[in-house]
Amino acid sequence: MEALLSNMTRSCPFLARTPVPALRKLSTVAVQSRSGKQTTALFVSAKKCPIMSKAIAVQAVKAGGAKSMHSSAVCPYAAVVDGISAVRPREAHPFIPAKAAKPAAAAASRCPIQHNKQPQPQAQVHHQHHQVRHEKPAAVPAVQPAQGAHKAFDYESFYQTELDKKHKDKSYRYFNNINRLAQKFPTAHTGTGEHVTVWCSNDYLGMSKHEAVTETMKATLDKYGAGAGGTRNIAGNAQLHLSLEHELADLHKKPAALVFSSCFVANDATLSTLAGKMPGCVIFSDSSNHASMIQGIKHSGAQKKIFRHNDVAHLEAQLQSVDINVPKIIAFESVYSMCGSIGPIKEIVALAKKYNALTFLDEVHAVGMYGSTGGGVAEYINVMDDIDIITGTLGKAYGVVGGYIAGSAPLVDLIRSYAPGFIFTTSLPPVVVAGALTSIRYLKQSQSERIGQQLNTRALKARLGDLGIPVVPNPSHIVPVLVGDAETAKSISDELLYKHKIYVQSINYPTVSVGEERLRITPTPGHGPELMDVLVDALEGIWKQRGLKMEQDWEAIGGRAGVGMGNSVEQLVVEADLGLEIPTVQRVAASA
Amino acid sequence: MEALLSNMTRSCPFLARTPVPALRKLSTVAVQSRSGKQTTALFVSAKKCPIMSKAIAVQAVKAGGAKSMHSSAVCPYAAVVDGISAVRPREAHPFIPAKAAKPAAAAASRCPIQHNKQPQPQAQVHHQHHQVRHEKPAAVPAVQPAQGAHKAFDYESFYQTELDKKHKDKSYRYFNNINRLAQKFPTAHTGTGEHVTVWCSNDYLGMSKHEAVTETMKATLDKYGAGAGGTRNIAGNAQLHLSLEHELADLHKKPAALVFSSCFVANDATLSTLAGKMPGCVIFSDSSNHASMIQGIKHSGAQKKIFRHNDVAHLEAQLQSVDINVPKIIAFESVYSMCGSIGPIKEIVALAKKYNALTFLDEVHAVGMYGSTGGGVAEYINVMDDIDIITGTLGKAYGVVGGYIAGSAPLVDLIRSYAPGFIFTTSLPPVVVAGALTSIRYLKQSQSERIGQQLNTRALKARLGDLGIPVVPNPSHIVPVLVGDAETAKSISDELLYKHKIYVQSINYPTVSVGEERLRITPTPGHGPELMDVLVDALEGIWKQRGLKMEQDWEAIGGRAGVGMGNSVEQLVVEADLGLEIPTVQRVAASA
Repeated sequence: MEALLSNMTRSCPFLARTPVPALRKLSTVAVQSRSGKQTTALFVSAKKCPIMSKAIAVQAVKAGGAKSMHSSAVCPYAAVVDGISAVRPREAHPFIPAKAAKPAAAAASRCPIQHNKQPQPQAQVHHQHHQVRHEKPAAVPAVQPAQGAHKAFDYESFYQTELDKKHKDKSYRYFNNINRLAQKFPTAHTGTGEHVTVWCSNDYLGMSKHEAVTETMKATLDKYGAGAGGTRNIAGNAQLHLSLEHELADLHKKPAALVFSSCFVANDATLSTLAGKMPGCVIFSDSSNHASMIQGIKHSGAQKKIFRHNDVAHLEAQLQSVDINVPKIIAFESVYSMCGSIGPIKEIVALAKKYNALTFLDEVHAVGMYGSTGGGVAEYINVMDDIDIITGTLGKAYGVVGGYIAGSAPLVDLIRSYAPGFIFTTSLPPVVVAGALTSIRYLKQSQSERIGQQLNTRALKARLGDLGIPVVPNPSHIVPVLVGDAETAKSISDELLYKHKIYVQSINYPTVSVGEERLRITPTPGHGPELMDVLVDALEGIWKQRGLKMEQDWEAIGGRAGVGMGNSVEQLVVEADLGLEIPTVQRVAASA
Repeated sequence: MEALLSNMTRSCPFLARTPVPALRKLSTVAVQSRSGKQTTALFVSAKKCPIMSKAIAVQAVKAGGAKSMHSSAVCPYAAVVDGISAVRPREAHPFIPAKAAKPAAAAASRCPIQHNKQPQPQAQVHHQHHQVRHEKPAAVPAVQPAQGAHKAFDYESFYQTELDKKHKDKSYRYFNNINRLAQKFPTAHTGTGEHVTVWCSNDYLGMSKHEAVTETMKATLDKYGAGAGGTRNIAGNAQLHLSLEHELADLHKKPAALVFSSCFVANDATLSTLAGKMPGCVIFSDSSNHASMIQGIKHSGAQKKIFRHNDVAHLEAQLQSVDINVPKIIAFESVYSMCGSIGPIKEIVALAKKYNALTFLDEVHAVGMYGSTGGGVAEYINVMDDIDIITGTLGKAYGVVGGYIAGSAPLVDLIRSYAPGFIFTTSLPPVVVAGALTSIRYLKQSQSERIGQQLNTRALKARLGDLGIPVVPNPSHIVPVLVGDAETAKSISDELLYKHKIYVQSINYPTVSVGEERLRITPTPGHGPELMDVLVDALEGIWKQRGLKMEQDWEAIGGRAGVGMGNSVEQLVVEADLGLEIPTVQRVAASA
């Protein structure tokens, strides 16, 4: 059986793509064959294919009768259902059901039934932005037409198959063309030149358009040019880099800091290097951790234990299960960006002390945003000193690009000395470094951006809450509006963009769980009452017109993602820190 | 024995750090004990420690006599030699020899002999640039003083030990403070404000200071601000990103391209994603490949076969050893940056076709530099169409920052859709993208920078060759001067910087092999005859004064790294393409 499967995998271009559930269904539907024998739908389909039927015949002879063949419950010769499909092919091919719509010409061209019905092989291209005029007539790598060449691995088909999976589970991403205008923040122009209001950027405080930042960068371009010209070790280490690291260390009250191309690289490089080097290291990772941490943990090769999101009891149980003497890292975030939840930092610090574990805290969505100098949630709740490793970004609240870690001098020097992702890459351009440095210094002093952002967040949450539009409850600056379906979320995002001139990206699987698809809204200090009116009215209209689930509807079915589950969540930043004595909505309205 | 070792590892802070060679030596030096018995130096040392001696006694009772203990040849209780050591502790501790110099206070404070002799724990910090005023009194994580707490993993000591290894093998990196001045290219100021000539930047063509680039960037800052504000999927995808990818695809005559934070990320993300997804994929990797490819290959989890540098016969033998039907990737570079060698691209392409393998070509040190439009070596030798995946950087010849891949549309879309290092990171700022785009477009048209760079490279190689200063022979734009010793290379680099105001970074292990340490010199079009005079005179003086090996000396001992091995290497870019009819040196001199 294995040999036959292996052979067939190479013979039938549809085989490898057939979803297991489809096979299972076909192989369990009982039908009568022409000869009156009991068989399965799968077997009947297979017998219609000239390649399959031949293979079955050969196998039947070898096995002493066809019956031994279809007595195997799951025989994967069949049924292309959704992932790969065809317009023309379905007319004649026994394995392509009528509801299939998209062409799979490359695969079909290798099928003896389909081959001659195709006008010409022509791969469908889904991501048009990347297309240029040099499309080669045949992108398939040349293969010497030697014996057995038809069995050779078909790279281009493989790519297409993997992309088809994305289309099938609705996780394929179409990028919107958004050009954020510095002089008209938070407005952007689209690819067609239309102006839209951006409501989903991570430029949370509008620092990317701040004159202090852009003017510093222009002066730095004149003085130091466009690029660093080398790695940190070879010609790419300027005083600006050292000053930035000094500033970041000071921000987090740590002895040292180190700058990377991005915080993705910082998290990946630091976790993989550190956990990879410490003998027997075990990493305890929050289940909602960012992809960069997941990747770093995976690449470290260390043992990983995933604890339930923000569940300190679960974390402690896992810590107890590991020898007290082995090195341990607890990796978690302060603000989780897709749901807006905040990590139980103090409780995790206490556990880390009790079990002698390092704490690795990703403050990517919090630096610049919380604390009296923008040091993050750990600064705001006064626990920064107890964190071993803090990581952050220069690309969100600080408005530029790049990432970093802060920690003890030997820890930072260890990463500096051993992490390939730090060592072997061109350093950030002085112009970028200067912009970030200016932004950090500015936000160490100024509170107005943070306060404005928090007030607008409170106002938006209150207004949507009053209307019953389902906001995932959370204590931070993120406003996730629950939709609960991938196509609907995408469709609302499109309607907002094209009809209401509002850009809010839909967030679908795998970034959030299936059934928890959402619109992730991020107010900034620049999103005042007028813009908020337009957004709230648009959402209210869409929710009514489409009859989408309101908060009470979610409650009626038991709730989802925290919506309609009776959670009462206070904002982290208390009213006293925002100068509030009257309710948020009134205040914001009054300030209009 | 295992239980004892395990127990001791936790008891003695020096144990885990003792180098194996030191242990081996101590355990094989035969000495007579006081009682006249034959024993080892290791055993005698161990008996002087109150913890060790007790453990040995306990073990001796269990094992029926002390002799069974020291009959074990490698007993790791002892001898701290170089890696970790102490100033004070060595006066009294039996395991720290007199030649040791650096303090290891944290470890010593846990030793019953050393504990009371230390004034206070104080970690030595080697990398002063990263130091700030918030140094905590004790950086060791707090541990609940429960039973057995003294056995807990000591993170800070671990970091220090790992750093000590770097100091010991001379691979510890001290960054020079180099601030490249756009208006005075190729001059930089150092941390003290002194002006020096940079001779080792990867800003090969001086594009980072090109007015077209910096002016575009300034205009883009005004228009689009400092940062992208999101990932490519969420608010961070502007027309500039799409235009850049279109331009890069066109540059390499490929259907599509994709931009990353850096080419380190591009190589890592693409190789790990692609090879990780293709079932049974085998990667064939040149032994001199860059760290980013090595990391991507490692992270893919795919089977790896390393072929000898540029050895196509070895590559073919490896290709033959693998089933023709499994997917394969041949990963290699065009210009290898530390030796300047160039990959046998045509031969590798032929093998790839023969064995149905993908070609993955890193053109990082070649894009902008070779080919009539700057498409790299593959463009220059007219083989670009036959490469499946080309990767390049925006941070070297193009003078900005960032990396990319170019290839077929489905391949690029696959990476775009699946690579976490692409998906989950803030996109490059529009200002960076605009600068890179301008630089690429400029270098598609202009030949003068490429020609000037090649002429200066030829001139420098000729002049050093005439003097007998050992240049690693190669056909590219890199001028590696062989030193052959890590400390000497570092010392020459320091002398050049401080005495001659010339910055050339020394390249040591692990970037190059031990014994092949070098100065890596990279002439640009801006390094004309006058600057070259200063450099050549300085090198000649240093080589004479220090009595360093000239080319003939290397030849006399059989050669190394290609020097003195009788290799005759032609430059890749032929004289006709440089408009040369008279010898290089004369021409360059004449043009002064």
